[in-house]
Amino acid sequence: MIKVGIVGGTGYTGIELLRILARHPQSEFVAITSRKEAGTPVAKLFPSLRGAVSIGYSDPAKSDLAKCDVVFFATPNTVAMSEAKALLDAGVRVVDLSADFRIKNVAEWEKWYKVKHAAPNLVGQAVYGLPEVNRAKIKGARLVANPGCYPTAVQLGLLPLAETGAVDLDHLIADAKSGVSGAGKKAEEHLLFSEAADNFKAYGVSGHRHWPEILQGLDAAAGRSVGLTFLPHLVPMIRGIHATLYARITASFDFQKLYEDRYRGEPFVDVLPSGSEPDTRSVRATNTCRIAIHRPHAGDMLVVLSVIDNLGKGAAGQAVQNMNIMFGFEETMGLSHLAVVP
Amino acid sequence: MIKVGIVGGTGYTGIELLRILARHPQSEFVAITSRKEAGTPVAKLFPSLRGAVSIGYSDPAKSDLAKCDVVFFATPNTVAMSEAKALLDAGVRVVDLSADFRIKNVAEWEKWYKVKHAAPNLVGQAVYGLPEVNRAKIKGARLVANPGCYPTAVQLGLLPLAETGAVDLDHLIADAKSGVSGAGKKAEEHLLFSEAADNFKAYGVSGHRHWPEILQGLDAAAGRSVGLTFLPHLVPMIRGIHATLYARITASFDFQKLYEDRYRGEPFVDVLPSGSEPDTRSVRATNTCRIAIHRPHAGDMLVVLSVIDNLGKGAAGQAVQNMNIMFGFEETMGLSHLAVVP
Amino acid sequence: MIKVGIVGGTGYTGIELLRILARHPQSEFVAITSRKEAGTPVAKLFPSLRGAVSIGYSDPAKSDLAKCDVVFFATPNTVAMSEAKALLDAGVRVVDLSADFRIKNVAEWEKWYKVKHAAPNLVGQAVYGLPEVNRAKIKGARLVANPGCYPTAVQLGLLPLAETGAVDLDHLIADAKSGVSGAGKKAEEHLLFSEAADNFKAYGVSGHRHWPEILQGLDAAAGRSVGLTFLPHLVPMIRGIHATLYARITASFDFQKLYEDRYRGEPFVDVLPSGSEPDTRSVRATNTCRIAIHRPHAGDMLVVLSVIDNLGKGAAGQAVQNMNIMFGFEETMGLSHLAVVP
Amino acid sequence: MIKVGIVGGTGYTGIELLRILARHPQSEFVAITSRKEAGTPVAKLFPSLRGAVSIGYSDPAKSDLAKCDVVFFATPNTVAMSEAKALLDAGVRVVDLSADFRIKNVAEWEKWYKVKHAAPNLVGQAVYGLPEVNRAKIKGARLVANPGCYPTAVQLGLLPLAETGAVDLDHLIADAKSGVSGAGKKAEEHLLFSEAADNFKAYGVSGHRHWPEILQGLDAAAGRSVGLTFLPHLVPMIRGIHATLYARITASFDFQKLYEDRYRGEPFVDVLPSGSEPDTRSVRATNTCRIAIHRPHAGDMLVVLSVIDNLGKGAAGQAVQNMNIMFGFEETMGLSHLAVVP
Repeated sequence: MIKVGIVGGTGYTGIELLRILARHPQSEFVAITSRKEAGTPVAKLFPSLRGAVSIGYSDPAKSDLAKCDVVFFATPNTVAMSEAKALLDAGVRVVDLSADFRIKNVAEWEKWYKVKHAAPNLVGQAVYGLPEVNRAKIKGARLVANPGCYPTAVQLGLLPLAETGAVDLDHLIADAKSGVSGAGKKAEEHLLFSEAADNFKAYGVSGHRHWPEILQGLDAAAGRSVGLTFLPHLVPMIRGIHATLYARITASFDFQKLYEDRYRGEPFVDVLPSGSEPDTRSVRATNTCRIAIHRPHAGDMLVVLSVIDNLGKGAAGQAVQNMNIMFGFEETMGLSHLAVVP
Repeated sequence: MIKVGIVGGTGYTGIELLRILARHPQSEFVAITSRKEAGTPVAKLFPSLRGAVSIGYSDPAKSDLAKCDVVFFATPNTVAMSEAKALLDAGVRVVDLSADFRIKNVAEWEKWYKVKHAAPNLVGQAVYGLPEVNRAKIKGARLVANPGCYPTAVQLGLLPLAETGAVDLDHLIADAKSGVSGAGKKAEEHLLFSEAADNFKAYGVSGHRHWPEILQGLDAAAGRSVGLTFLPHLVPMIRGIHATLYARITASFDFQKLYEDRYRGEPFVDVLPSGSEPDTRSVRATNTCRIAIHRPHAGDMLVVLSVIDNLGKGAAGQAVQNMNIMFGFEETMGLSHLAVVP
Repeated sequence: MIKVGIVGGTGYTGIELLRILARHPQSEFVAITSRKEAGTPVAKLFPSLRGAVSIGYSDPAKSDLAKCDVVFFATPNTVAMSEAKALLDAGVRVVDLSADFRIKNVAEWEKWYKVKHAAPNLVGQAVYGLPEVNRAKIKGARLVANPGCYPTAVQLGLLPLAETGAVDLDHLIADAKSGVSGAGKKAEEHLLFSEAADNFKAYGVSGHRHWPEILQGLDAAAGRSVGLTFLPHLVPMIRGIHATLYARITASFDFQKLYEDRYRGEPFVDVLPSGSEPDTRSVRATNTCRIAIHRPHAGDMLVVLSVIDNLGKGAAGQAVQNMNIMFGFEETMGLSHLAVVP
Repeated sequence: MIKVGIVGGTGYTGIELLRILARHPQSEFVAITSRKEAGTPVAKLFPSLRGAVSIGYSDPAKSDLAKCDVVFFATPNTVAMSEAKALLDAGVRVVDLSADFRIKNVAEWEKWYKVKHAAPNLVGQAVYGLPEVNRAKIKGARLVANPGCYPTAVQLGLLPLAETGAVDLDHLIADAKSGVSGAGKKAEEHLLFSEAADNFKAYGVSGHRHWPEILQGLDAAAGRSVGLTFLPHLVPMIRGIHATLYARITASFDFQKLYEDRYRGEPFVDVLPSGSEPDTRSVRATNTCRIAIHRPHAGDMLVVLSVIDNLGKGAAGQAVQNMNIMFGFEETMGLSHLAVVP
């Protein structure tokens, strides 16, 4: 049984962490902090947790975070980079669900996040928490940078291609679609029900922060610089990411077999039979990524479909998967939920 | 470990049963039947079950249902009444999620379901599976009639009043709202996305089959004939029932305490603190009913709010709760899911 | 052709006014004000108006509002009560879509809106803009208090009963359901897509500001004090109100005929044939109210179903109807939109 | 005033035609046919048309279609090809909203629609009703093949590129997303609310009937054979198509100016300012197509965003636009609706 803390347990990644960890057989909550909700029982803010989570939010300044074995940051960007060091120094292991430690090139990070990095020296030791790439490093990590939601769906969908070639790596396209919870629980007009419902649009066309994060992963996998057009869209649904990935085939290859081989044994990546069209609800509220490979009209364009739950494999689920790896638990522990259908 | 069969595992109560039972520690699937899908792997029809359910649909005529310890009927009305007897005779215990055995008055049943009952002699021995009323009888039952979704939400919300009085039992009102999955997975025009989305309406105003079922329960609780106006509405959401219940107060009473006392110790009925306004998502994909008591403007009208998931406590969850009771398992076994929020 | 101004044309009632008036054959926009958006072309904020509205938002302080024939306040409560007088003094007629002038009893208003009224002397001369009750007074009004959305749906549904009796007027019940746009374009957490979608709940159970407004209208119609329980619910749809109204019948009466007679000739109230169950989309984006009368099981409970579009007949549509009456235009001018179905 | 008939006025393109034409100043309904609903008043099936459409459905066999000036086929595929000839012979002009006459290569059509064409000789004289390409021919046409919804959005988005070059025309990509009404009012399981809501998926990945239709248009515009990967997705919204189009730039060019010049003067194509991200609701219930041009990171990939309402410019709106052209009416007559926002 390990002692778990959560910084910022009031947003969407926070409540999903709470939902998962409250039923995890090897974790117990020691501290869940929120400046704004300090003193409020967690189950008052989230009645869905009544009977399952008995503690209340505590003030970050007065909390028992330092007594934890692991602390999750489910905070907006720029919080973890200021607060992680003290915890690491106290021997606490940290999983940061925000973007603070994801990008190795600090200057690039500062360009996209428009703020000076408060702990550039920690960036180097942070392990990018995509288990399908970094499992061994995660095991020994003190600080895990949990991947973004789009980067998880897109990288899992493109990694086998980046690693192997056989497609034009200079002109990859990721046409990605996300449910609204991907934007977090922010009271902003464009996220209102009456704005987002019965509507569809692209956004961030000129540039999105997840683009450099995806590129970093693909470059590393390819051992060269790849070219990627990444276009996110907002879907009127709560959870789910669907990445439609296009790559021009440059060499004959059995792509279906490539993906099956690459992800054989991965507990949370499910390569579907040829011809499949995965829907996002098949992974809703789970830690699974489902992938399908297509070659329409037997032409020279490969199409890869990759779906995840942005709050599951795209955030809290993956964070718990990382925790399981870090502490030597069964990797699937507490993550065996089946998707809620319908 | 008990052997479980499901008749009709392709609809919404079927897939919810599969989702729950696939993770139930004391059940194993022996037969899941479907005339139409015989031969198809269950996980092909429901990719969300890939890796969790390995068997396929079998033809009801050739299945191993008779070898099961318990068989669930997740079928349209009128199937179970024809097929239950053979299974009961073979020593199989039966939980029927359809309406075939819910109403004790066979003539009344035939009036509402517009067909002659095929097994009127079984109706008497069927136990109405509302554990909060019939727990002891369910324990020994061979045949359980699992309650309807509206009847579960409305009865749990009105039972304390019916049992106690202190309100005008001749003019109860149940204004009920249901998600679309309550109508089942039927290819009917009015259930299409483009018909039901961004829309709201009442239906069945002149009479709904759940009305006599609710009345039967309330009459029994009150020991007299009660009067009830029951009005269902269709909400553009997938799951969830919200019953808004109105009763004119006729005597001074601590209603909050009444409800808390009535449901103390009930694992799946959660009486909320005074002033609460439960939302349906707080019980989404769970077996929980949450209830709140109000007396607006301190007037003489009592308002009770009762929410359930129509596929959970309103169908499959309650069916598994009944199975747990019947086989002496912990009543909450396999039913500890926390609601998916958001 | 009259000169029209809008104060606060950036919210939902504002954009609906713009949509309607941009195609109204007798109105031209002279000033649309917004402190925050001053200088922005209206069609930049609302691309749906490209090609239809050419002017930009102006600063209220520097605007041409005083040159208008009529000014609509599509502002949050408490703005109109401060600014209407200057316009009225300048000879401008005013239609206030907010709540500032709806309640005649200023003390009651101040209790519900929790602020001191800035222009109590104007309250008396304001005409409550429900044409089906006050058409003659609206014609000559300088200041029209446009009714709230719930009050429109509920009053139109209950007025014939209040005027006639034959039901228990001490225990009326209005179980009302509204689309999310009814709350306005406010960046508040509970209105986020991820909070309101796939969810349903009651709110304001202990008291809602529209309750005294409805009571005021029913009391006047009945010539006595009536009793009403009013319970609003939030529906995961953008537009639409569905009021389910319950009244205990106390005398034999042809209620269907009562409603048909009461609303004969009304251009925007459509009494449906007996047995109808109107859906909200049948009035989406229109100024129509559809009403159906039921008496379930031929019992003593009358059920009236009343649907409107909260932004149409519940706000901007009714405001334009009032303008048409005030200026002697055909009452339906610019309001002949047919509902968008599906 | 022309006499108008509609064959098959019960589906989604039918009701949208009715909504538009009921307010068209130069059309009057003479016959609206439906085998199934013969005898039913149109406004009974669609209460939203109460007061606006007074006639009833008539049996196609006994109808007055031959007395019309123009007849619209809003039928499933294969009806118009059997019935158009008799009407054309009677001097009636025909606008077919189905796919029967869209593809000039009859063998190709038969391959995709899996049935023998009943009137191959009419295919040649049919004019493809995309006014932005064929306005002059439409003016004199007896038989107009109204374009499909995806083909309208994708062609309007790619035509300037096909006509001009400067991109790799062998590897165009159209990642298209459609609201559920695009599939028609068919009682099929995958279109149910509980299946399509809160969900997102690709479909028809291996091949979709709109692909050859789009190719035919692009080939003609380019004067050569182009290569296109077309991938449709189902969005949980009622109306709207969003096409995200990718083309690799091969020559320096002012693409923004290209589009503005190409569509200058077009009443229903709106090229947005550089940097825009159009949402589908900005064209909801209208006949407008909005287009935005992007070049992310100033790289070599051009991204074009094109949005329409699949029932408006993608079906009924465009059909009425074609009628206006055919009969010499103002092209925008009856089509000046502003989008319903929110």
